[in-house]
Amino acid sequence: MNFDLLKPLFKEDANGKIVLLVMDGLGGLPITPGGPTELEAAHKPNMDALAARSVLGLHHSVPYGITPGSGQAHLGLFGYDPVKYEIGRGVLSALGVDFELGPNDVAARGNFCTVDAEGVITDRRAGRIPTEVGARLCNLLKEKVQLPGVELFLIPEKEYRFVLVMRGAGLVSEITDTDPQSVGKKAHIAQAVVPAAEATAELVREFVRQGDLVLAEEHPANSFVLRGFASTPSWPKFNDVWGVNALAIAMYPMYRGVSKVVGMTVMPAAASMEEEITMLEQNWNSYDFFFVHIKKTDSYGEDGNFEGKVHVIEEVDQLLPRILALNPDVLIITGDHSTPAKLKSHSWHPVPTLLYSKDCRPDGITSFGERACVGGSLGSRFDANDLMPFAIAHAGRLDKYGA
Amino acid sequence: MNFDLLKPLFKEDANGKIVLLVMDGLGGLPITPGGPTELEAAHKPNMDALAARSVLGLHHSVPYGITPGSGQAHLGLFGYDPVKYEIGRGVLSALGVDFELGPNDVAARGNFCTVDAEGVITDRRAGRIPTEVGARLCNLLKEKVQLPGVELFLIPEKEYRFVLVMRGAGLVSEITDTDPQSVGKKAHIAQAVVPAAEATAELVREFVRQGDLVLAEEHPANSFVLRGFASTPSWPKFNDVWGVNALAIAMYPMYRGVSKVVGMTVMPAAASMEEEITMLEQNWNSYDFFFVHIKKTDSYGEDGNFEGKVHVIEEVDQLLPRILALNPDVLIITGDHSTPAKLKSHSWHPVPTLLYSKDCRPDGITSFGERACVGGSLGSRFDANDLMPFAIAHAGRLDKYGA
Repeated sequence: MNFDLLKPLFKEDANGKIVLLVMDGLGGLPITPGGPTELEAAHKPNMDALAARSVLGLHHSVPYGITPGSGQAHLGLFGYDPVKYEIGRGVLSALGVDFELGPNDVAARGNFCTVDAEGVITDRRAGRIPTEVGARLCNLLKEKVQLPGVELFLIPEKEYRFVLVMRGAGLVSEITDTDPQSVGKKAHIAQAVVPAAEATAELVREFVRQGDLVLAEEHPANSFVLRGFASTPSWPKFNDVWGVNALAIAMYPMYRGVSKVVGMTVMPAAASMEEEITMLEQNWNSYDFFFVHIKKTDSYGEDGNFEGKVHVIEEVDQLLPRILALNPDVLIITGDHSTPAKLKSHSWHPVPTLLYSKDCRPDGITSFGERACVGGSLGSRFDANDLMPFAIAHAGRLDKYGA
Repeated sequence: MNFDLLKPLFKEDANGKIVLLVMDGLGGLPITPGGPTELEAAHKPNMDALAARSVLGLHHSVPYGITPGSGQAHLGLFGYDPVKYEIGRGVLSALGVDFELGPNDVAARGNFCTVDAEGVITDRRAGRIPTEVGARLCNLLKEKVQLPGVELFLIPEKEYRFVLVMRGAGLVSEITDTDPQSVGKKAHIAQAVVPAAEATAELVREFVRQGDLVLAEEHPANSFVLRGFASTPSWPKFNDVWGVNALAIAMYPMYRGVSKVVGMTVMPAAASMEEEITMLEQNWNSYDFFFVHIKKTDSYGEDGNFEGKVHVIEEVDQLLPRILALNPDVLIITGDHSTPAKLKSHSWHPVPTLLYSKDCRPDGITSFGERACVGGSLGSRFDANDLMPFAIAHAGRLDKYGA
């Protein structure tokens, strides 16, 4: 979508409200030949009834066959081409811990890890150290490591995960990962990808040298790896691109982070799906676009827990009447990508999608599932980037193009 | 479509004949949940029988979610990307009244309107003055208004509508509308969009100043607004692009206009749908591509008259045997866009399409309707620009590409 094409079409008096309900990793696979997927197996009378009044299809956010990461997949849903709009993992992690990145900041995602006497990584997660230990080690690094002209921030995430932010004039983020992404290897040496990043790469190498000395006597977290060096991008803002006032509701840092990157207002982390829906209700009159993120479908998929994923979908179905009671002009139910329990990972399979609006042209399909969606009018392989134009059109927010 | 790709493929001895039958605003919506659309409700035994021997699908001419205007939508059907090939409303209107635009001409669409003592527009259509009154006011403006170095043409259309053409050396059409497109506002002041258009914009402002004085004592048409300033584009010609000799048959100026812009031969306005088909019959041996435009489906849709639109579709169905008796090699039945009676306006919903050819691979679908078309082999959301290549291929007019 050429964003410039839409702007002149925004209706001045538009007030249609849109809910984008994302069940992370929604798409699945049968675990027995001919059997149902997680979504097909779920008892979900509310979603199925809504399907009969909706248009259906299956989307993909990156070129077909490619499995997207979570950030990229959400950018796709938000209408940003994930191949064009690259976002660094470090930035997502920093925003996800509510760290306000400045224009001179370079962020990276860190993992504490265990290395042997030769420096070979033996555990990329340092035995999943408790979150408190991770926090103590972050403080230790912050206290002991000194880099000239650079302010360091080390923000603990869950367990072995942390975020490194380097703040200083002239920092450039085009630096390679030190994380080799597997055990049995030494950490890589950070390298500049462009000449302008050479000084920053040397600062990273110095940080690693000093940091490894600081951690040398710790156990099991006696080292760390870094990946996804990035600075915050300056992209067109979601609200400007789509002519809406958007609120993001999500329990996990990554999803609040990507929402912040595109400029949405982001709610504090909710403690449960129920609280997420309560947040939606309480803010209904103040916004006109709502991104609501459900994490647990993906978590169970990653764990290979078919029944667990089915159950989360059923729980969401039970919450659906509360959303429908708000009378949204458009309600989209979809995932960001597929996470089939069968594969225990994200996958490339297109993602079932339901778009309800009183002005849609229903497909006559009476259930919400992968195979049913193949016959839907949105298409069996539509571009996730198409969803936002569909949504604002169905919400009555666009004038016609031309005479 | 890259036009250059096709040209080497045109068969020298091609003689397949193609009919593109466009029912304007054909696509619809159910007015009751689960009910039929206009096309689905229509009793149309001839179209349904043809569907069983055809390929079906739903097209859109501009990015999905965007509602196209009539000119843009027809360009899409003719194989021209409407976003790339922009056409001004003024040009369409001028061509539609059979005005031959020259290279030094700038045209605009005019509406006579009613303004109050402060110049605020109270009726954008001046009470739908009779066409004769509009013609008299055009003559009055032509007679009284004098612009240095510019020849003025004021051509009345129906009722309150007219076309302004300014002819003179150095005119540049990039000028903003004076039409605010709603009542309760004053007319805008015409502004140059590019510096080169400044002199022309001043001529427009002078035309407005003098014209308002001329009309001051008229009632109810005591002012006018202008929009869609444009010059005629120089695009690849339809006959060259598709290797055909095309004839356009349409009752309304807009559609004859857009056909002229792409270089089709255009018949004079027919008085009825029956006469349009007679024109088709009488010219069958002289052309090999025929664009036949049916307006009333759109008119009833705009009026919110579901039954009226159904009835027009049924009338067209009764005319279909006369078209089939000509034995066209390809017959396409579609719309330019959707105009659901439910919405009383153009809409973004994809447009049902049927392509018959003795050499098509029928989909096994036995009715022509929106939901049936979702399952058709053309796809539930295909690009309108694909229709012309489909058509000339099915008409046996293309050699293969490569060895």
